This record gives sequence, C-alpha cells and structure tokens, in this order.
Amino acid sequence: MISQEKLQEILGNIPAPGNTRKLVDLNTIREVKIDGEKVEITAATTVFDDQAKIWLKGAIENVALKQDGVKEVNVNLVALKPKEINAIGSVIAVMSGKGGVGKSLVTGLMSVALRKQGYRVGILDADITGPSIPKMFGLTEKPYVTENGILPVQSSLGIEVMSINLLLQNDDDAVIWRGPLIGQIITQFWADVVWGKMDYLIVDLPPGTSDAPLTVLQTLPVNGIIIVFTPQDLTAMVVRKAVNMAKQMKKNIIGVVENMSYLYIPEINKKMEIFGKSRGDEMARIAGAPLLAQIPVDPELVKLCDQGNIESYNTEIYGDFARNLFDVLLTEGQAKNI
Amino acid sequence: MISQEKLQEILGNIPAPGNTRKLVDLNTIREVKIDGEKVEITAATTVFDDQAKIWLKGAIENVALKQDGVKEVNVNLVALKPKEINAIGSVIAVMSGKGGVGKSLVTGLMSVALRKQGYRVGILDADITGPSIPKMFGLTEKPYVTENGILPVQSSLGIEVMSINLLLQNDDDAVIWRGPLIGQIITQFWADVVWGKMDYLIVDLPPGTSDAPLTVLQTLPVNGIIIVFTPQDLTAMVVRKAVNMAKQMKKNIIGVVENMSYLYIPEINKKMEIFGKSRGDEMARIAGAPLLAQIPVDPELVKLCDQGNIESYNTEIYGDFARNLFDVLLTEGQAKNI
Repeated sequence: MISQEKLQEILGNIPAPGNTRKLVDLNTIREVKIDGEKVEITAATTVFDDQAKIWLKGAIENVALKQDGVKEVNVNLVALKPKEINAIGSVIAVMSGKGGVGKSLVTGLMSVALRKQGYRVGILDADITGPSIPKMFGLTEKPYVTENGILPVQSSLGIEVMSINLLLQNDDDAVIWRGPLIGQIITQFWADVVWGKMDYLIVDLPPGTSDAPLTVLQTLPVNGIIIVFTPQDLTAMVVRKAVNMAKQMKKNIIGVVENMSYLYIPEINKKMEIFGKSRGDEMARIAGAPLLAQIPVDPELVKLCDQGNIESYNTEIYGDFARNLFDVLLTEGQAKNI
Repeated sequence: MISQEKLQEILGNIPAPGNTRKLVDLNTIREVKIDGEKVEITAATTVFDDQAKIWLKGAIENVALKQDGVKEVNVNLVALKPKEINAIGSVIAVMSGKGGVGKSLVTGLMSVALRKQGYRVGILDADITGPSIPKMFGLTEKPYVTENGILPVQSSLGIEVMSINLLLQNDDDAVIWRGPLIGQIITQFWADVVWGKMDYLIVDLPPGTSDAPLTVLQTLPVNGIIIVFTPQDLTAMVVRKAVNMAKQMKKNIIGVVENMSYLYIPEINKKMEIFGKSRGDEMARIAGAPLLAQIPVDPELVKLCDQGNIESYNTEIYGDFARNLFDVLLTEGQAKNI
C-alpha cells in the first residue's frame, strides 16, 4: 500500500491545466487520509469555474486510483480565497527611497538567482505608477483574472509575476491615481493573487517613503528588506531616509546592494567610478546589514533588460551577488525564521 | 518733481533686511500717488511682526522724503497673504514619471541658466519624500517661518528655494506620510511661501503619476512641462506614461531633455552610449515638443551636485541647453502668454 506522504507527493505533481504549474505549486492538496483501500483527499482551490472543479476532481481521482492498493477515492473540494491558499515562505521587500537606482534590476536579479537554485519565486511589482518588471522579463501575456482570484504570469524560468502593467491595455497607459487607490491595488496584489506555495516573494517597491512603501510595510508580512543605492552623495541622503523609515517601522534590513558602482572600459582596462566613489561600506554600516553586491553599469545588462531577457544575464559579479544573497537568507533564516 | 514711475523704482530698490532681496522682489510697493509735494504710498506685506512693520514704514518714508520735491509722505501698509502678494510669471513643471532620470538636475540647470540671464527664479521642490534640490545648491539654512508665511532660502546666485528638506531637523529624516499630507505640503509651498515677484517658478516633481504630480498639475497654474528621460527602453515606457498624464490633464509640454545620453571617455576620445542608443528624437515626437538637450553622464557634474556647487557648472552642452530653453520660452511666451 502506498504511504500518505508518497501519495501526497504524487498528487502534488499533477500538472495544472493551461500553465506550467503543478498542484503542489498552487498548494491544492491539503490532506490525504488512507483508511485501508479507501483514500480521502481534501483539495483546496479558488474554484475558478465549474469546469475547473470537474477537471480537478477527476484528475485527482484518476491519479489516486492508479496507486498501489487504492480501490476507492473520495475527493472533497474546499473553496478558499487566494489569501487562505497562499503559503509564502519569506517576503523580501526591495527598497531605496530614491528612484532610478535599480530596485527593479536588483529585484529581477535576486529572483532569477533564487529561481535558478530551484526555489519557487514570485515578484509583486508594487511600483504602480512606474512598473518595470514585466518589460525586464519580456512578459506581455495578461494574467488570468476571475472574481475568485488572479493568476500571476510566469516568466520563462517560471518566476510568478504580478504587476499593474500586465493589466493595462497599453504598457504606457498612465495610472493617475491618488495614494488610497495605489494602496488598495497593492493590497489586492497580496491578498487576491493566487501565489500558491512559494519560497520567496520579492516585492519591488516604488521610490519614496509615502503610500506604496507604507502600505507594503504595514500590510504585508515583510521578513526582510534589501536596500539599493548608487554611489552619488545625493542618492545616499535619500536612501538614508528609506533606512530610517525601515528602522522606524521596526523592519529588518538584511542586506544592501550598490548599483552603478562603476563602469568597466575594456579599451583601457579601467574601472571608472562615473557616479562618484563607492559608498558600499558606508551604506552597509548605516543600514547595519552586509553589502551583498556592487553591480557595475553594464551596457550588456541594460540591453538584456530592455529586450526582456534579464533571465539570461550571467557574469561573475552576478554569481557573487547570488552567493552572498543565499548566505544572508540562510543566516537570517536560522536567526529570524526566514 | 520726481515722476511716479521713478519713485516706484527707487522705493523698489530698498533692500529688505536680513537677506539679499529688495522690496521690488517681494512685490511690496503697490501704488505711488503724487499730489503736489505730497506722496501717498501703498505697500503690501505679509507683516511678519510689528518690528518689521515699523522698519518698512520708516524705510519707505525716509527714501521718499529724500527725493526731489517731496515734502510729505504717507505710507499705507496693507497686510496680504503670500498668495495675494506673489506675482509669478510662469510656472514650469519638470516631470518624468520615472525616478532617477535627472529631474532635479534639469530643474537645477534650468534655474541657473535663467538666473544667469537676470531673471528672478524660484524652485519649488515638490519631491517631498526624496528632495534633492537643497543639497545640489549647498543650502542648509532654515527658511524664515511665521504664521503669516514662509520665506524661501536663497542660493548663492539668488535662486529662491523651498524644499521639505530645509524644514527637517536632519536631512536624512524620512517623511513617512500618505498622499493627502504630501498634497497639503505642496499646496502650502505654493500658497504660503513668499515667492514675491518672480519670472519663473520651476517645480521639481517626484517620480510617478500619483499624488504629488496630480496635486501640482491640478492646483498650480502650470504654464508648461519639461519632460526628462534617459535612453533606456524601460525608462522610455514609464516616461511615456508621464507624457500621457500631461496630455490627459491638458497640460502643455514645452520641451524634452535626454539625460545620461552618453559618457565621453577622454582616454580614447569616444562617446559611449552606456544606457543604450539615444531616443531624443523619438521622445520629442511622442511628447510633441522640441529636444532641448542631450546631457551626458559627466562625473564632474555629479561631483559638483554632490558638493552643492551646481551653480558653477559651465560647459558647451550646458550653454546649448540654456539657449534652446530661452528659445522655447520665448516662442511659448508669444504663443501662450508664458
């Protein structure tokens, strides 16, 4: 007779229709009880429609009945809200206070690094008025939206992405909303999106210390913050504002990343500090968190992001960043249950 | 006997105490009536305190009495709100939608260019959560604040600056406010600041298309918008959102500026397009407005801004920018009363 654990695993591997997710990713299989030759299965779903319900019941029954020693299968479908279904390991917010320092880039690179290590990763693009994530990942597909929930769009590597730009008719439509509406949309991206079972949800924050960052830090269970900055003195001041906001809101800064640190010019084999002297150590000290990376201005990376190919970026610098990120997530995980 | 016009001019040249402004800058002398040897003068002021009132009355009387043929002087002081006193020629908003593209830099350079031409210029820093202007101009002095109004802080060249960072205890204090408060502060910077008589008020907008830009475009009499962008495709999309916002709100875009257009490397005498191919012409077409400048990444300019010395920047590129700016302001002025 098959064991409970094994059956749960096999059922989890059933592919969900219409996308590359499996039932385990959607956190569907909740309980498997084996009583002799009889199997009782509880499956939770946001129940998109009747057809999906019939499919789900049938798929689970069919697979269960094929297992060793199983003669009778009973599937109980439980309708849950996305929020009740979602099981997210860690929520990491990428923040800077200042615009254009590379929050989205760092969000993208972090997500790719984690995904390549086999983690299930999602990106919640909280930059409602200036969303960059879909373009960076080359996503144009619309999310599947019903009154019961929204399915994110998956990148080539399988990163789950939710962004306002996926919902707009044209990607350059302006979202001219005041703060309360912005806050509502972010809350919806958290509560009404079927993130499913996920190791890391990375939240790309907009600049500033007003509505959007406030809503994220107050509403979402943020486990850690990554601060992004550039070497400019001017930027550093504004980034210190973000550090102060995080501290005031008692949030844990787990690392800092310097972007546009330098430009390497192959013709003269020289690193040019075009935006000023690196302030990596200074910012790490101010934030009380390790410096995870010093990312150069890399025209190749700019091009990849513009082409929607951020997932194919691969350099030594990026490898170092990924390693430092894993180190800090591991340490924080032990210390602070990330 | 002195003429009315001449006397008004002479009185306007009286220096106001404690700063480098004259009464004409503060729009104080409102009416001068000459009746034989008797002069009737109406002076409007925000009446900071009794001492200021006594000083003002005395200063005007003394100067008037020294003029040819004047035997008797009567000064009527009228208390007005800053909003009633201010006389601002044109309000120009600098916008981009995207953060970190150089709105503050362009605001700064434009203001310096206009000031050097002899215009009276002010900067309203509407970026409440990430204000960069004071640092760029090296301003640390606190504005003079009374219940009747706020006096801006003057730069070395005499540009009048109002920014939230001039009011904070520490320049890296975070302003963790939601939209309505941000909107209120911006409205106050417009209505409660003694801008006085001014040719150009340049408004530095924060990124996004939410509260702050909305408040500025809805509340202030914006005569023209300058759009700032960088060559990145990603940036262009977000900037197009700002262009669409401006168009939806029926605001007039008078020019576009490309920042970080290229980096000049003297060692190899080469311009490197580190953020991608220039999109100056494309953005000018989309915005329906002329391309005023293509500003390179210039480590020297970065350093000057970080040191608070933006006013001493002087290059050929900057000269071209200034000339194009004057051209467009002149043309717009004829066509649209700027």
